[in-house]
Amino acid sequence: MLGAFDPARSLLLTDLYELSMLDAYRREGMAALASFEFFVRKLPPCRNFFVAAGLAQVVEFLENARFTEGELAWLASTGRFPPETIEHLRAFRFTGEVDAMPEGTVFFADEPVLRVTAPLPEAQLVESRLINLLHFQILIASKAARMVLAAPGKILLDFGLRRAHGAEAGLLAARASWLAGFTGTATVPADPLFGIPIYGTMAHSFVQAFASEREAFAAFARSHPKALILLIDTYDTEAAARLVVEMAPELAARGTPVRGVRLDSGDLAAHARAVRAILDGAGLREVKIFASGGLDEHLLARHVAEGVPIDGYGVGTSLTTSTDWPALDCAYKLVAYAGEPRRKRSEGKATWPGAKQVWRSYENGRMAGDRLGLAEERQEGEPLLVPVMRGGRRIGPLPTLAEARERCARELAGLPDALRRLDPAPAYPVEPTAALRALAEACDRRQRERAEERP
Amino acid sequence: MLGAFDPARSLLLTDLYELSMLDAYRREGMAALASFEFFVRKLPPCRNFFVAAGLAQVVEFLENARFTEGELAWLASTGRFPPETIEHLRAFRFTGEVDAMPEGTVFFADEPVLRVTAPLPEAQLVESRLINLLHFQILIASKAARMVLAAPGKILLDFGLRRAHGAEAGLLAARASWLAGFTGTATVPADPLFGIPIYGTMAHSFVQAFASEREAFAAFARSHPKALILLIDTYDTEAAARLVVEMAPELAARGTPVRGVRLDSGDLAAHARAVRAILDGAGLREVKIFASGGLDEHLLARHVAEGVPIDGYGVGTSLTTSTDWPALDCAYKLVAYAGEPRRKRSEGKATWPGAKQVWRSYENGRMAGDRLGLAEERQEGEPLLVPVMRGGRRIGPLPTLAEARERCARELAGLPDALRRLDPAPAYPVEPTAALRALAEACDRRQRERAEERP
Repeated sequence: MLGAFDPARSLLLTDLYELSMLDAYRREGMAALASFEFFVRKLPPCRNFFVAAGLAQVVEFLENARFTEGELAWLASTGRFPPETIEHLRAFRFTGEVDAMPEGTVFFADEPVLRVTAPLPEAQLVESRLINLLHFQILIASKAARMVLAAPGKILLDFGLRRAHGAEAGLLAARASWLAGFTGTATVPADPLFGIPIYGTMAHSFVQAFASEREAFAAFARSHPKALILLIDTYDTEAAARLVVEMAPELAARGTPVRGVRLDSGDLAAHARAVRAILDGAGLREVKIFASGGLDEHLLARHVAEGVPIDGYGVGTSLTTSTDWPALDCAYKLVAYAGEPRRKRSEGKATWPGAKQVWRSYENGRMAGDRLGLAEERQEGEPLLVPVMRGGRRIGPLPTLAEARERCARELAGLPDALRRLDPAPAYPVEPTAALRALAEACDRRQRERAEERP
Repeated sequence: MLGAFDPARSLLLTDLYELSMLDAYRREGMAALASFEFFVRKLPPCRNFFVAAGLAQVVEFLENARFTEGELAWLASTGRFPPETIEHLRAFRFTGEVDAMPEGTVFFADEPVLRVTAPLPEAQLVESRLINLLHFQILIASKAARMVLAAPGKILLDFGLRRAHGAEAGLLAARASWLAGFTGTATVPADPLFGIPIYGTMAHSFVQAFASEREAFAAFARSHPKALILLIDTYDTEAAARLVVEMAPELAARGTPVRGVRLDSGDLAAHARAVRAILDGAGLREVKIFASGGLDEHLLARHVAEGVPIDGYGVGTSLTTSTDWPALDCAYKLVAYAGEPRRKRSEGKATWPGAKQVWRSYENGRMAGDRLGLAEERQEGEPLLVPVMRGGRRIGPLPTLAEARERCARELAGLPDALRRLDPAPAYPVEPTAALRALAEACDRRQRERAEERP
C-alpha cells in the first residue's frame, strides 16, 4: 500500500496523535514558534552519567522530513483528516532551528540535550521519531561508556546485532558503542556507512560442519591467512587449545600464524588462565585470547581487577539491549510557545520552562558542576548546547563520528573519579539558576490564574 | 557508499563472520545440505511461556535475500574476499526449506521454533538477521501476552514507539503486541502495513500550547468530532475532570460528545477513582477512562484485582523494550550437515542434535505436555512445526496477521492455569524422546573418537 516502505526514513513513522494535533493546529491557525527540549528525567541507579548520541541521525531525519505520495494517498483514504490537512502534510518541511549538545558530550538528568524551535506543527510532528532516535543511541552510548571505563586498554567489540531490537537498533548500536570508545563491531554495514572497523572470526556451526576441529581450523586458515582467530570452545576448550599448539608450527610455516583464540562459554576467567598457560607453555605468548558470551561491565571490571589474561572482549546482548536498564525516562517537552514560556506540572513529571542552556565548570581539568539556566542568560562556564540547524538546514558540517568519539574520550577523562566507577556515585551537581526558578514560579502562577478565569 | 541503504532489507546487515565462513565454505566446496534450528535456551524467571512471532518477516527476508551491486562493490573494495567469493555473493539466493511453528503458537525452552534446511553457505549467511528478526518479535509477543492475560476485557494499546529501540523495533512491536491480543497501537504505519487499528489522542504539549485547558479541549473537539478523548493531567487532574463535566453539555450539543479522558501521571488508581466519581456524579457514566504512563502487567493485574475504574491502557516502554527481560537467550544452531546430525557441547550451551519436531498433547482442551523428538519419528500429539518454504519460496500464503492473532488467543486459552498467571509457574513438561537422547549420546561418542584420531 505504501510501496517500498523504509520506516527509518518515513515521516509516517509517528504516533497517530502527532497527526491529530497537527490537524487541530492547522484548523486553529496555530503556527507560532514553539520550542521543545529533549531531556532525560532521571539517572537510573546503574548509571552515573549519560553520553549524548544520535544527533547526526536527527539532523538527517529533519532535513529529509516529508511525506511520500503513497503515504498521503493512504492518509487521505482513511478519512481521518480533511483534504486541507492532507495538502498541509504534502507541503510539510522542517524549517526550524536546532541547538544541541555535540555527540559525545557527557550530560545529566534534566539537562536539555537538544532544542527544536520551529512553527508549532513542525516541532510537534517530529516528536515521536526524534525521541526514538535520540533515546536509543544515548542509551547505548551511555552503557558502552561504562564498559570502556571498566576495561581500560582492552579490545572491546560489539557482537550484539542478533539480539538487538531490529535492524536499525543493530546498526545504530554499533555506531553508539564505537562513539563511546569501543574498538569496533561485527556488524558489517557499520564500516561502509560509518567508517567503523569491523571484526569477525567463526561460529560454532563452522567447527561443527567439519568432521573435526582440526579440519575446521585448517580450512579457516586457508581462507584467513592474515587474522587467524580460532574458536576453541565448541567441544572442550583446553583440548582445543592443545590442538592449536599442535597445529601452530605448521600453520605458521604456511604463512598463516595463529593470532588469537576465542572462548565463548563456561567460566571465561578459568578457561582463559588455563588456555594462557597452555599457549605460553608452547611459546605462543603472542597469541591473544578473546572472550565473548554473557559479558557486561561488571564482569569486565572483575576480570581487570583479577588480572584475567583476556586481551579482548566481544560484548553482545548486554550492550545492544542495555539489559540492566533498557529504556531511559526521557521526554521532548514544550518549553515555550509564541514567545511565552510553558511548563507542565503533572505529578512527578514537572518540567523547567523556557529555552534553556547548560553551562559547565571545570576544576583541574575535571568537571566540577553544571548550571541549568535560560538560554538568554549569561553565566560562567562552557555552554554545552551549540547551534546545529537554522532554517531547516544544518549550519555547517557536523563533527565526524571519529571526532565525536574523540570528544567522548575527552569527556570520560574529565569525569570526576566517583562518576567513572561502576558503583552509584553521589549526584553530580546541576544547579538551576535563580532566573530559571523565578520563571517556573511565574508560569505556575499564570496558569492558576487562567484556570480560574471563566470564558 | 551503498546508496539508499535500508538495513531492514539488506543482506549485508550481518556479522562479518558469516561472510568469512561463507568464503571458507566456498573454498572448501562445502555446500551440502545443512539444518539449523532456532530455539530459546531458557525461560526467564518472569516468563512462563513464549509466543512464536516474526515468521512472516523471516520468509520475506529469505525470499528477497540478495546483495545489491553497491554492496558487492564495497565488499570487493575492502580486499577481504577474492573475486570468486564476490561472484558467489552476487549469485546468492536462498533456495532452501523452512519448517516452523505458525505465528501465535505457544512454545517453551529448547523447542525449535524454526528450522532452515539449505546448502550450508545459505543456511549460515542468513543466521544473524534471522535471529534478529525472530528474537525481537518473540520477545515482544511473549511480553504482550502477559499483559493480555493480566487485564482481560480491557482495551490495551501500544504507545511505545518513542522508546522502542529504533524504527523497526517500534513498528514490529506494534505487530507483535497486536498478534498477542492487544487492541491496537498508536504507531501509524502499523495500519497500512499490517492492518492494525491505530489510536491516538493528544499530548501535554497540545494543552500547554493553548492559554488554558478549556481552550485546548474546545479546539480539539472542533477537529475531532467523532472520538473525543481529552488528556486531563497536564496541570491538575481532578480540576480538569470538573472542567470536562462543565464543558460536556455544550460539546455534546455541538455534536462532539466527550468519549473519554486520559490520565498519564501520579497514582493512576486514585486519580481514576476520583475522576470516575466526578464524571458519574454529573451523569457522564458512558465517558471512558484511559490511563498511560509507567504501566506493566503487574500494575494491570493489581488494577483488575482492585476493581480500579480504568477502561483502557496505553502501554509503552515496558512493552516495546520488554523492560523486565529485554533479551532472550536464543540461538540458531547447526543440527545436521551432509546427512549427519551435529551437536555443540560447549558448557551450559549444549544443543540437541538432528532435525527435530515438537508434539503437543492436550487434556480437556488444555496443553498437557510436549515431546521433543527427531523429525522423522512418529509420536502422538499435534506436531507444531509445519512446512513453510520449499525451494526458497513459500509453499502457500502464510496465515494472515489476524489469523495468527486468533491462533494466539486460542493458545493462551489452552494454557494450564498456572502458566496463565504472572507468578513463576512449575515448568511445563517438555520430554525429549528416547531416540533423541540416544542420538545425542552417539554424537558425543563420535566427536570424542574423531578428536582422538591423529591426521
